[in-house]
Amino acid sequence: MSVQVAVVMGSKSDLDDVKETLQILEDFGIEYEAKILSAHRTPDETIAYARAAYERGLKVIIAAAGGAAHLAGVIAGCQTLPVIGIPMKTKTLDGLDSLLSIVQMPAGVPVATVAVGKAGCKNAAVLAATIIGAFDQSMHDKIVKYKEDMKNKVLESTID
Amino acid sequence: MSVQVAVVMGSKSDLDDVKETLQILEDFGIEYEAKILSAHRTPDETIAYARAAYERGLKVIIAAAGGAAHLAGVIAGCQTLPVIGIPMKTKTLDGLDSLLSIVQMPAGVPVATVAVGKAGCKNAAVLAATIIGAFDQSMHDKIVKYKEDMKNKVLESTID
Amino acid sequence: MSVQVAVVMGSKSDLDDVKETLQILEDFGIEYEAKILSAHRTPDETIAYARAAYERGLKVIIAAAGGAAHLAGVIAGCQTLPVIGIPMKTKTLDGLDSLLSIVQMPAGVPVATVAVGKAGCKNAAVLAATIIGAFDQSMHDKIVKYKEDMKNKVLESTID
Amino acid sequence: MSVQVAVVMGSKSDLDDVKETLQILEDFGIEYEAKILSAHRTPDETIAYARAAYERGLKVIIAAAGGAAHLAGVIAGCQTLPVIGIPMKTKTLDGLDSLLSIVQMPAGVPVATVAVGKAGCKNAAVLAATIIGAFDQSMHDKIVKYKEDMKNKVLESTID
Amino acid sequence: MSVQVAVVMGSKSDLDDVKETLQILEDFGIEYEAKILSAHRTPDETIAYARAAYERGLKVIIAAAGGAAHLAGVIAGCQTLPVIGIPMKTKTLDGLDSLLSIVQMPAGVPVATVAVGKAGCKNAAVLAATIIGAFDQSMHDKIVKYKEDMKNKVLESTID
Amino acid sequence: MSVQVAVVMGSKSDLDDVKETLQILEDFGIEYEAKILSAHRTPDETIAYARAAYERGLKVIIAAAGGAAHLAGVIAGCQTLPVIGIPMKTKTLDGLDSLLSIVQMPAGVPVATVAVGKAGCKNAAVLAATIIGAFDQSMHDKIVKYKEDMKNKVLESTID
Amino acid sequence: MSVQVAVVMGSKSDLDDVKETLQILEDFGIEYEAKILSAHRTPDETIAYARAAYERGLKVIIAAAGGAAHLAGVIAGCQTLPVIGIPMKTKTLDGLDSLLSIVQMPAGVPVATVAVGKAGCKNAAVLAATIIGAFDQSMHDKIVKYKEDMKNKVLESTID
Amino acid sequence: MSVQVAVVMGSKSDLDDVKETLQILEDFGIEYEAKILSAHRTPDETIAYARAAYERGLKVIIAAAGGAAHLAGVIAGCQTLPVIGIPMKTKTLDGLDSLLSIVQMPAGVPVATVAVGKAGCKNAAVLAATIIGAFDQSMHDKIVKYKEDMKNKVLESTID
Repeated sequence: MSVQVAVVMGSKSDLDDVKETLQILEDFGIEYEAKILSAHRTPDETIAYARAAYERGLKVIIAAAGGAAHLAGVIAGCQTLPVIGIPMKTKTLDGLDSLLSIVQMPAGVPVATVAVGKAGCKNAAVLAATIIGAFDQSMHDKIVKYKEDMKNKVLESTID
Repeated sequence: MSVQVAVVMGSKSDLDDVKETLQILEDFGIEYEAKILSAHRTPDETIAYARAAYERGLKVIIAAAGGAAHLAGVIAGCQTLPVIGIPMKTKTLDGLDSLLSIVQMPAGVPVATVAVGKAGCKNAAVLAATIIGAFDQSMHDKIVKYKEDMKNKVLESTID
Repeated sequence: MSVQVAVVMGSKSDLDDVKETLQILEDFGIEYEAKILSAHRTPDETIAYARAAYERGLKVIIAAAGGAAHLAGVIAGCQTLPVIGIPMKTKTLDGLDSLLSIVQMPAGVPVATVAVGKAGCKNAAVLAATIIGAFDQSMHDKIVKYKEDMKNKVLESTID
Repeated sequence: MSVQVAVVMGSKSDLDDVKETLQILEDFGIEYEAKILSAHRTPDETIAYARAAYERGLKVIIAAAGGAAHLAGVIAGCQTLPVIGIPMKTKTLDGLDSLLSIVQMPAGVPVATVAVGKAGCKNAAVLAATIIGAFDQSMHDKIVKYKEDMKNKVLESTID
Repeated sequence: MSVQVAVVMGSKSDLDDVKETLQILEDFGIEYEAKILSAHRTPDETIAYARAAYERGLKVIIAAAGGAAHLAGVIAGCQTLPVIGIPMKTKTLDGLDSLLSIVQMPAGVPVATVAVGKAGCKNAAVLAATIIGAFDQSMHDKIVKYKEDMKNKVLESTID
Repeated sequence: MSVQVAVVMGSKSDLDDVKETLQILEDFGIEYEAKILSAHRTPDETIAYARAAYERGLKVIIAAAGGAAHLAGVIAGCQTLPVIGIPMKTKTLDGLDSLLSIVQMPAGVPVATVAVGKAGCKNAAVLAATIIGAFDQSMHDKIVKYKEDMKNKVLESTID
Repeated sequence: MSVQVAVVMGSKSDLDDVKETLQILEDFGIEYEAKILSAHRTPDETIAYARAAYERGLKVIIAAAGGAAHLAGVIAGCQTLPVIGIPMKTKTLDGLDSLLSIVQMPAGVPVATVAVGKAGCKNAAVLAATIIGAFDQSMHDKIVKYKEDMKNKVLESTID
Repeated sequence: MSVQVAVVMGSKSDLDDVKETLQILEDFGIEYEAKILSAHRTPDETIAYARAAYERGLKVIIAAAGGAAHLAGVIAGCQTLPVIGIPMKTKTLDGLDSLLSIVQMPAGVPVATVAVGKAGCKNAAVLAATIIGAFDQSMHDKIVKYKEDMKNKVLESTID
C-alpha cells in the first residue's frame, strides 16, 4: 500500500510527543511517512515536499510545530491536500502561541487544528483516520471499533 | 448528486456568518444541507441526525457554535465522520471561549477546528472541499483553480 | 437513605482530585454515587444515566471534566436537575480551557460552575450541601457547623 | 407565597442586564425580591440582608457584579444558602475579571457561577429554578416544559 | 512605638511568601502586626479588625490573598485607611485570577495593588514605607538609603 | 496650601479619562498639579520633575499611561514618594498590556496600581486621599463622609 | 537613491493602517517600495521577492499581517535581511493572535516585532530609520531631530 | 575592532539565559559588551550608558528584562540606536507581562521585540547580526552560512 499520510514536524525535539501520532496511525494500519522539515529553516524543501504529496497519492498532511508555528500554514498555502495542524506545548506561553499561530488562518487557507500538546498529537492521527474512513469502508469499520473500544474502556472503569 | 456535507449550527443567529460557509460550498459545487440543532436544547435530534450521516453517504459534518460550544464535540463523539468545528465570535470573550471549547478535545475524539468567526466560516467550507478533493480529482481541480484565483487576486492588487 | 448526589467524571485520572469531592460529601453525610462517564466516549450511557437521575430521587449532579469539557453541559442539556461543573486543571492551558468550556453555557442551560481544580472539587461538594441545606434543616445545621469550624480554624491560626 | 429567591446587584446600572434574570424568575412563577447592595459600599447592609435570608425562608441568593466582583463571594461567606454569581461584562477586560473574581473561590466557600453577561443573567434564574425544582414537583414540571419549549423553538427554526 | 502597618493574609499557607513582607517591614523599622483573617471564613472578625485600625493609629493595611481574592477589597470597603493588595500566585491560573480580583476595584474603593507573588510581597512593604516616608523624614531617609543600596548592588554586579 | 499630589500623564489624549482624577482631587480639596510628561519622549524632564517632588512637599505622584506603560515605573524608580499607576485602556489589548506593564514591578520598586481605565482614574484620586487621610484628620473626615455618601447613594437606589 | 526598505502586507485591507508606515518612511526620506504579498496565497512570489532584496541593496523588510500571521516569519526564514513584523489588529482576538504568531519565532530566525496595530505601523518605520541611522550619519541626524520634535510636542502640551 | 553591540540586562539572574545571546554574538564574531543595568534601580547610569553608545560607535543595544520590563523602552526613549528587547520568562505570568511591557511601545519609540525567554535570547543576537549584515558584506556572508548550517541540521535529522 502506498503512503497515505505525511507527518511533518519542525524539530526532532517534537518527536517525543509526535510519536503518539505515529503509533496511532500504525494502530489504524495507515501507511505514513515522518519527516523533520521547518517552514523557517528549510522553506524550499518543505514546500517542495508538500507540493509533491498530492501526485504521490497522499491524502492528508499532518504538521506539528510550536511557538510562532507556521509549518502547517505554509503547507496549507502551497498545495491542495487537507492539512492537520498540531500546536505543540511551549515552555513559555503553554502553547497558546502555537494554537493561535495555527488556528487563526485567513479565509481561503484552512488548517484543521487539533488540541495543544499530547492530546492533539493523538487526535491528529484519529482525525486523519476519520478523513480516510469517510471514503473507505474498511477504515470506517476500524474507527467504529476504535470508538467501541474507547467506550468499553470507560464503562469498565470502576471507582473503588 | 447526494448530500456530501452537513452544516449544523446551534442557533439561527449564527446564520449571519455561517451563510459564508454555505456560499463557498455552493461555489465548489458541493451538495450540502444546513440545519439548526443544539447540543444542549436538542441533544437527541442532534445525535440522531449525526449518526445517520455516514449511512446517508455524507463525508464531512461542519458544526458552528459559540461560548461553551459543545456541538462539534458532541457530534464528533457519537459518530465516525470527520467533524469541522467553527468557533463563533461571542459578545463577551471575543470567541476565545468558543475556540477553547472546540479545539481542546480529549484524545480519541478530534474536532478539526478552524479560525474564530467569519474567516473560520469560510475556511470550514474550503477545508471540506480539500477533504473531498483528496479523494476526488474533479474537486481537486476546483481547489487548484480556487487557489490560483486567490493568488491572482493578490498579485493584481496595487498600491496607488 | 437514597442517593442524593451523583458525581460523574470524564476519566479515571480525574479521581485523584475528585476524591476530595467524595470525601466532603461523606463528611456531610450526603449519600452519593460516583461514575466514570464521558460526553464524547459514552454519550448514550451518559445521557441515559443523567435522565434517570430525577426519577431516582437525586437532587444534584456534579460533573468534573477538563479541556474541551462538555460533560456538565451535556448533562445540563438533557435533564432537569441542577448540574455543578468542576473545571479540571489541564496540562496545557492550566484549566482556562476547562473553565470557559463549562461556565460559558448558552441561555437556558446553566451549569453551576466552581473553581478550577482541587478547590473546585471541594466546593462542588459544599455547594451540593448548601443546595440540599436550603430545603433540609438538618443539612443546614451541618453547614452552619462546617462554617463555624472553618472560622475557628482561621482564628486559631497563629503567626509565630 | 413567600419570597424564594433574592437577586442582589452591585449597582443600578447592572439592572439593564439583570432584568433578564427577573423576567425569567417571573416566567417560572418564582417569588423574588431585587436589591441594590454593594460588598464595598454597603458591606454591613449586604451582610445583614444575606444573613436574614435563610430564616425568612429564601432558598437561593443570586448576586450580580462586575470587575473585582466580590458581592457573591462575600454573601457566600457570611451565610448558608446557595449563592449564584453572575459575572457582569465590563468595559475594560470584557468580564474576564468579573468571571475570575467570582468563580475562583477558595475551598469551603463555593459560588455557583454562570456565564458572563446577558446569558449568565438568564441562566442564574434558570439555575435557581432547577434548584427549587429538585425539591418541588410543580417547579420540576415547569422546567420540563421550559426545556420542551426551547427544543421546539430550535426544531421549528428553518434556514431558507 | 505603636503599630503602623497591619499585614493580613487569608490563610497560613500564604505566610511562606508573606514573610518577605514582614522581613522588609522589620528592615525599615516599621512596627507591624500580622494576622490570618479571611473575607469568606471570618468576615465579622475581618471587618471588626479593619475598622479598629484607624483609631489604633495604624497608617496602612496590607492584605494578601489568592484566587477570588476579596480580602483587600472587603477591607478597603469597610474603613478609610489605604489598603495594599498582594495577589498571591495560584496553582491553577498563575495568579491572574488573584490580580484581577484585587486590582479591578469599582470607582470609589481603591486597592493599591502590587505585583503577583513574591515580588509583590516585598513591594507591599516597600510601598508602605514610601507612604509613611512621605510624611516622616526619618523614614524618607531610610528609603533613600534603601534605594542607594539597591543601586550599588546593581552597579557592583559583574559579568565574568 | 501647597501642592500635595502630582498627576502626570503620558499624552494629552489621556486627559479625557484623567480629568476624572482631577475632579475627585478637587472634590477632596487636595491641591494638585497636572502635567503631560512621557517616560519615552521626555525622560530627562520626567525624572527631573519627579525628583523635585519630595523637596517641594508633595506626598503622592499619580502616573497614567497606556500600552507599554513605563511612566509610573520610571517615576517610582528615580525618587522616594509613593507612586500610583493608572493603566489606561488601550485600543488593541483592552488595557491588559497597560495593567501588566504597571503592576508587575520588580522587588524594591513598587507602583500602587489601580483598575484599568476610568474606574482607575477615579480611584487613583481616592487612593491619594486615603494616603493623605492616614496622616491628616481633616482628610480622614472627608473620606468618612465620601464613603457615607457612596453608601447612601446605593441604599437610596430603587428598582421599580 | 535606491530602495532601502520594502513594506510587504498580506492584504490590501491592511493598507488603511500601513499607510502610516509609508508616511513616516517618506518623512524620513527613506526610499521604499510597498507590495501586497501573502505567505499563504502567493508563497512563491513572496519568497522570490524577499530573496532578491539583499542583492538589490535593500536594508530592511517590513511585513504586516494579522491572525495566524506568517508573512514576517516566512520572509525571515528565506533570506538574510532584518525583518520587522507588524501584528495587525484583528476583529476576533484583538491582535493577540497576530502578536504571538509573529514574535514567538524559534531560535535562529528572529523577527523584530513592534506593537499591535497603528502604533506598530508607525514604529516599524521608525525602527527601520534607527537601523539605517546606526550606519548613516545623516539618517542619525534626522532621528535626533524626530526625537527632539516629539519631546517638544510633549513639553508644549498644556492642560487648561 | 570596536564594540558593536551592547547587551544590557536588569539583573544578574537574567544571565543564565542571556549567556545564550553572548555566545551567539561571539559565534558571529561580533564585538560586544555586557552590563547589568536597571531602569528602576540605576536609571541615571542606564540612561548615561545608553546615550554614550552612538558616539562610541555601537550599532545595536540589546536589553533583557522581565515582569514590568521597562529597560528596553527607557533605552529606546533616550537615544537613537535600534534597541532589541528580550522579554524574560517570569515565574508568575510566564513572560506575558514581559512581552506586553516591551512590545506595546507608543508611536515614535519602537523596541524590536523577540520571543519570550531562551529563544528570544538567541534571536536577539541573530537579529543584531542581520542588522549589521545588512550593511556589512562579511557579516552577511556569516549569516548565509549560519542559515545554511541550520538548514543542514534539519535535513540531516532522521526519525528512526
